[in-house]
Amino acid sequence: VPFIPVSKQSLLSNVDVIANMQMSFQNEFSEGTYQQSRFVMNQFRLEIRGKVHDKVYFRFRDRYTRGVVPQTIDNISRSTDLAFLRFDANDSWSIYAGKLCADWGGFEFDANPIEIYEYSDIIEYADNFLVGAGVSYMLPDKQNQFTVQLLNSRTASFTELYDTTALPGIKPAKFPFAGVLNWRGNFGKFSTLWSYSVFREAENEYMNYLALGNQFQTGKFHIQYDFKWSREALDRKGIVSGITDNMGIKHAYRARYMSHWVRLDWHLSSKVNLFFVGMMDDAYWKPSGTTLPANTSTNKLRTAWGYIPGVEVYPFKNLNLKVFGTFIGRKYVYTDYAKSNFGMANTDNYRASIGIISPLVIL
Amino acid sequence: VPFIPVSKQSLLSNVDVIANMQMSFQNEFSEGTYQQSRFVMNQFRLEIRGKVHDKVYFRFRDRYTRGVVPQTIDNISRSTDLAFLRFDANDSWSIYAGKLCADWGGFEFDANPIEIYEYSDIIEYADNFLVGAGVSYMLPDKQNQFTVQLLNSRTASFTELYDTTALPGIKPAKFPFAGVLNWRGNFGKFSTLWSYSVFREAENEYMNYLALGNQFQTGKFHIQYDFKWSREALDRKGIVSGITDNMGIKHAYRARYMSHWVRLDWHLSSKVNLFFVGMMDDAYWKPSGTTLPANTSTNKLRTAWGYIPGVEVYPFKNLNLKVFGTFIGRKYVYTDYAKSNFGMANTDNYRASIGIISPLVIL
Amino acid sequence: VPFIPVSKQSLLSNVDVIANMQMSFQNEFSEGTYQQSRFVMNQFRLEIRGKVHDKVYFRFRDRYTRGVVPQTIDNISRSTDLAFLRFDANDSWSIYAGKLCADWGGFEFDANPIEIYEYSDIIEYADNFLVGAGVSYMLPDKQNQFTVQLLNSRTASFTELYDTTALPGIKPAKFPFAGVLNWRGNFGKFSTLWSYSVFREAENEYMNYLALGNQFQTGKFHIQYDFKWSREALDRKGIVSGITDNMGIKHAYRARYMSHWVRLDWHLSSKVNLFFVGMMDDAYWKPSGTTLPANTSTNKLRTAWGYIPGVEVYPFKNLNLKVFGTFIGRKYVYTDYAKSNFGMANTDNYRASIGIISPLVIL
Repeated sequence: VPFIPVSKQSLLSNVDVIANMQMSFQNEFSEGTYQQSRFVMNQFRLEIRGKVHDKVYFRFRDRYTRGVVPQTIDNISRSTDLAFLRFDANDSWSIYAGKLCADWGGFEFDANPIEIYEYSDIIEYADNFLVGAGVSYMLPDKQNQFTVQLLNSRTASFTELYDTTALPGIKPAKFPFAGVLNWRGNFGKFSTLWSYSVFREAENEYMNYLALGNQFQTGKFHIQYDFKWSREALDRKGIVSGITDNMGIKHAYRARYMSHWVRLDWHLSSKVNLFFVGMMDDAYWKPSGTTLPANTSTNKLRTAWGYIPGVEVYPFKNLNLKVFGTFIGRKYVYTDYAKSNFGMANTDNYRASIGIISPLVIL
Repeated sequence: VPFIPVSKQSLLSNVDVIANMQMSFQNEFSEGTYQQSRFVMNQFRLEIRGKVHDKVYFRFRDRYTRGVVPQTIDNISRSTDLAFLRFDANDSWSIYAGKLCADWGGFEFDANPIEIYEYSDIIEYADNFLVGAGVSYMLPDKQNQFTVQLLNSRTASFTELYDTTALPGIKPAKFPFAGVLNWRGNFGKFSTLWSYSVFREAENEYMNYLALGNQFQTGKFHIQYDFKWSREALDRKGIVSGITDNMGIKHAYRARYMSHWVRLDWHLSSKVNLFFVGMMDDAYWKPSGTTLPANTSTNKLRTAWGYIPGVEVYPFKNLNLKVFGTFIGRKYVYTDYAKSNFGMANTDNYRASIGIISPLVIL
Repeated sequence: VPFIPVSKQSLLSNVDVIANMQMSFQNEFSEGTYQQSRFVMNQFRLEIRGKVHDKVYFRFRDRYTRGVVPQTIDNISRSTDLAFLRFDANDSWSIYAGKLCADWGGFEFDANPIEIYEYSDIIEYADNFLVGAGVSYMLPDKQNQFTVQLLNSRTASFTELYDTTALPGIKPAKFPFAGVLNWRGNFGKFSTLWSYSVFREAENEYMNYLALGNQFQTGKFHIQYDFKWSREALDRKGIVSGITDNMGIKHAYRARYMSHWVRLDWHLSSKVNLFFVGMMDDAYWKPSGTTLPANTSTNKLRTAWGYIPGVEVYPFKNLNLKVFGTFIGRKYVYTDYAKSNFGMANTDNYRASIGIISPLVIL
């Protein structure tokens, strides 16, 4: 009779293989007109994670919904979200290294991607998986954890991301890093997930990102609110540049983004959850140094609205799988300034989806 | 001493990781002339499948012989054949959702791809792995199962597959679906795998597909015969269009395909199997609406013949691995109509292969 | 209580899933000037390997740092290093088939790629993972093993690798094979890893490759020395062609490469290892059949030097993981002939790296 060696039993017990899935049947509308229906595998990410040693934890996650393209800076494929090691020196200190999820903060970003029906602009357009290293410290009260990360600021090179002829006088940074500071606090019903980050995009050109995630849980109710704010010396998200490009400004300087995101959950029972996600993403830009007139409406260019009401049902007792029905609405409202100077027009689209979400443990 | 938790033991017992392989050394001939020799990994598909819960079955299969390209309609890579969940409500009813193998019917299509030395045209040129959902019902006699599937009709968009300027007046469908009806019957020595499918390719343009798979097993003999037939308002397989393109008709209307496929197995012993696969694929097209003369030979354009005699040897007792030697011949015979109107010429090629096939369980 | 079946217990005990990783933070210099700093995932290769049956061993390894591109000749992705089966007929004889690591010989090549900080030219520019078959024979003394392999000589077709208009009169081979002969000898403190290979690149155009790997171990010291030599009727490495291309000779005939590689290890303790890797790669070419003057300096074009001193620390007792600090220097020195005839100039670059290496067993 074979007998599994103890070291293998330990791996088999502690390591999970997970198929992270979100699939749906969706009906899409634009400006109130029905466009198309289709089945979509919104997310399929295979994951292997767990303790591989007393003091070492490993995590790997790879998407099957993205081409496998090794990147110029970090050498690993964009399809690979995570490939890192964590050393747990003791109960307080941990060290991370590898391809990490940048610890931006905010509860929207912290969720498993399969839980998100649609990301807010400020996350959707960011580079979230970067190679680097980090250190975490848990306070002795076990309720507050602080993390510092040092990462590449991007996976692709400066010249791949930016058309340098459109950026006279800008010199690529020799070490384009992202420094991240994160605080996770737990105060019983209330918890926080705050962070501040600075990115060196080019010489003397930085990006500053603040995310303040807040969560309140009581009985059947669950409220999450994220405030996110980004100030970008060189527009990295590209949303503002996508607008100014209409007037020949390919890469906008001094773009600002501000985002409010809220998720409300009402757990009617262990099987049924009603939820509402609301988001509001503002894009700002000051036309200084250009021939354009001043933007008198606080430099705002557009507001992107999102509203996602829905229901989630858990049909199985011992399986983390839910069936959902949602309505996912997006509305892009431009300021008069953006309309008259850049020819923008409001758009409005939504889709009705039913589907399945599961972080299915398969081994 | 570690001890594997019960839930893990259940997964480890019920879930298999499989390396589906077909590799060969092949010598290729064209029109009777030796062309080249090479080693080929014809198939390498990693698979994870099994019961992950009392009532839930998971299956994932991915190829390493195809680029990873997420598709416009379903968002998942073409290299991923399968990524689905099956819920077994009870002994009779099952529900499927995800990227599925369309239940086209016919024994050729139902086989593990590594068992196939060369596919018949009608399968080779089809889109077989589609995202969608299905329901199966097993009769109380446990011998007859009926399946209904609703799938996307393709993974790519209409404009990616068709040059719309060559299709004046055709409007892409808003919901390009495939509806599939399948019957698996078991009558002792005789069994069936029949299906009928309808695809909505464009507004008012449908494709109809019928597959009648039949199997007869007795002692050492094993006979499979598939009849397949497809009527395509817009030529989806592209075989007819490949011919008519020579006269400027890029996408042919009203193409028809008919296929006969037979596989004979003679199990000489538990270690040796002699087999013969024969196939005959006809392509038809009516030149109505064009300036071409009528096609008097029942509108046939070509017949593609296939003949694959061979031997399979199982060297191991407890391992599903076989060594094969085959001769794989293909002959493409065009009708006089295709020759005179489209300048087609018959072709004849074959290859002699020796190799290994295994759906190797590796974990 | 579930209970894992015996066949599964056997697989779970004998098969390993391994995340082969090399990650680093590196500071890069060129001609003495600081260029850039970045975090890099130098290597990430997932591997599954082990005994899947009494007499059958399986191995699969795939990179996440390379695009998934199926190859014209062998049909499998370049990202897949290994996908093969080994049959152990008895204690002496083994047979291999599938995508193999060509058994070139030499200790540099034989190492796990994550152990290599920088490859010598002669390996860096070679095609090392090829589909084919092989046989190994172990002498009854259990100290000498001989291997013969027959492989495709490349993964891509002749016309993909070579611009045939630049090669008048050269006919692609009908069976472009590589034949490999390898000897692994063990003489106590001294061991060998020698091989000779011949590649058929085109009709009447062969490549001959000799690798003589030698290892000496005594107490805390460990010395490896490889001599490698390649004579290429058609320049396959492309290093010489990269130089002659400057004078319009796209594919050089009769290139020769010679490589010396040495690695010294001084295991100060079970936790600390000091090492030095040195390499010298010469590229030769005889300008016969061209209008260029004779190359009087033994036909040499350049010498590529490599010097890699460093330290490796193993922080964990039961985990094969090391932290390293190295200085990786490369110097390319051209002969006067190459400078005056092809306009080449010497280059000198280096990088200082700290990082982590682990063939981490994750399941």
